[in-house]
Amino acid sequence: MKFYSDKQIMDVYSMSDAMNDVKNTLLRINDGKVKTPERTVIPVSDDNVMLYMPSADVESLYSTIKIISIFPNNKDKNMPATQAVSVITELESGQNVATLEASYLTRLRTGAMTGLSTDIQARKDAKVLGVIGTGGMAFEQALGVLEVRDIERIVLFNRTEEKAHSFKDQLIAFGVTVKIEIADNVNDLTEVSDIINTATNSTKAVFDHNFVKPGTHINGLGTYMPHMREINEESIKVASHVIFDDLDAVKIEAGEFIHAVEAGDFSWDTPVALKDMLDKEIDRRDTDITIFKSVGAAYYDMSVTIGAYEKLK
Amino acid sequence: MKFYSDKQIMDVYSMSDAMNDVKNTLLRINDGKVKTPERTVIPVSDDNVMLYMPSADVESLYSTIKIISIFPNNKDKNMPATQAVSVITELESGQNVATLEASYLTRLRTGAMTGLSTDIQARKDAKVLGVIGTGGMAFEQALGVLEVRDIERIVLFNRTEEKAHSFKDQLIAFGVTVKIEIADNVNDLTEVSDIINTATNSTKAVFDHNFVKPGTHINGLGTYMPHMREINEESIKVASHVIFDDLDAVKIEAGEFIHAVEAGDFSWDTPVALKDMLDKEIDRRDTDITIFKSVGAAYYDMSVTIGAYEKLK
Repeated sequence: MKFYSDKQIMDVYSMSDAMNDVKNTLLRINDGKVKTPERTVIPVSDDNVMLYMPSADVESLYSTIKIISIFPNNKDKNMPATQAVSVITELESGQNVATLEASYLTRLRTGAMTGLSTDIQARKDAKVLGVIGTGGMAFEQALGVLEVRDIERIVLFNRTEEKAHSFKDQLIAFGVTVKIEIADNVNDLTEVSDIINTATNSTKAVFDHNFVKPGTHINGLGTYMPHMREINEESIKVASHVIFDDLDAVKIEAGEFIHAVEAGDFSWDTPVALKDMLDKEIDRRDTDITIFKSVGAAYYDMSVTIGAYEKLK
Repeated sequence: MKFYSDKQIMDVYSMSDAMNDVKNTLLRINDGKVKTPERTVIPVSDDNVMLYMPSADVESLYSTIKIISIFPNNKDKNMPATQAVSVITELESGQNVATLEASYLTRLRTGAMTGLSTDIQARKDAKVLGVIGTGGMAFEQALGVLEVRDIERIVLFNRTEEKAHSFKDQLIAFGVTVKIEIADNVNDLTEVSDIINTATNSTKAVFDHNFVKPGTHINGLGTYMPHMREINEESIKVASHVIFDDLDAVKIEAGEFIHAVEAGDFSWDTPVALKDMLDKEIDRRDTDITIFKSVGAAYYDMSVTIGAYEKLK
């Protein structure tokens, strides 16, 4: 039984690896090779929850389970609100071969699915990426976009502006060479962005739809509970094409979509699953608004856990 | 994140530790402090299955998940048919603190519950322990009995007699000093035993009820699928007192009991759960037949995982 830290995984496993692996896993789902039972949720206090997310790939012959603690009040103690590890079992022998730290892998798989969706949905000539919310998963979400479009300019907005500056430094340290600006006002970001990434804990829309440019593609990954809102519901209402990472999960967890359906502004019949759009061209006009919404599913975690393990072992 | 091997756990965590911890966990279940959702089963081939068994103890502030592969054909490759690890999460901080190998702990918790039940059910003056089936969990099952009764003589029976000899050597090496015999014929064992342990993969009864002495207590832990049989159904029919490790699980998994119910020889209303019998005296006549049947449940695994971790850390 091996243990691999985030650091060790980062050294060998990149965004392009993850995008490739996630795509192949989604194709195997379509071939019936992936089995993902419902995740198990154990509330362990009034505020805290344990999640157990297993999935098995009977073609690549691995099963994994991601074990995540969600402790929102950890932030007050300067500790991460979510902490995760994944255990990987080799299905030729049944041997439990490794435990992998799963913070980086969780961010990476979210970035990878963002990249895949952006590649399918966004205008080919998208040049400006707006990033609203620079915490948690925002970094890899931005990398996913950079992987698939020739972005020339990144505009950042964060409620605490200082954190946007750190995020800029982090991008530069990673080797991102495009122009990076920080907006004082979210509208300044919205009105120039071809692609908008949102990754916040907000309970109301984080941008004003009136400032959204025609042709904008929006990637949302912040909301994961029914009371949360992030993507403006006006944008949802007019979007021509919406992709969800997992149809069942989004219906239960994505607040702004749940609300838009309740308000009659959106129908669950409209969106398509990422797995059903691979290698397809969407019929998009240059002025269409498109949206990708992600809440996560165990098979995405499995995909990158296997991919990283194959490189590490 | 730490990893602890079976060997490391064996060095610090004994049967008496496990009996104490299992008892305390069962008491906390009764206080509503333990949360055990349904386990997740993923069939990964025609023969092989992955099991994921989580449980949380909100008083001792740990949650655990046991990850088990059940690969029956591994035996043909000289590999174990079941391989398990447990991951433990500390519920004060949400930190995933350790992965523990779980083969020894699984055997130990089964031995511990056998010890607890034997102490409640068996005659106080039981002197002779008969062990039918000397593979897998039989060793710790025997240790559980030795922990609670002054056994003077152990009689072993195994279909492959050679393995009974190895088992005898193993008991002696562990420090067991009582007389140990090997029976050529299972009836020779049955007719002298005050307590009978069964731990086989049989699909029919492994002893003849006509040879069972009045007053015998039987511990069964081999059957875990509806088609399996091990304890003689005549003995089930006449038993005055039956304890199950987990009522719901036994109803689904214990073949001879399922069959006895179908045949009208037993009722699911009769047995009691181990957790409800702690610190109780049963009303047993010296001639009564009593039975403990175990198939396992996640909270037993959690109990010994926490107990071992507390000693290891």
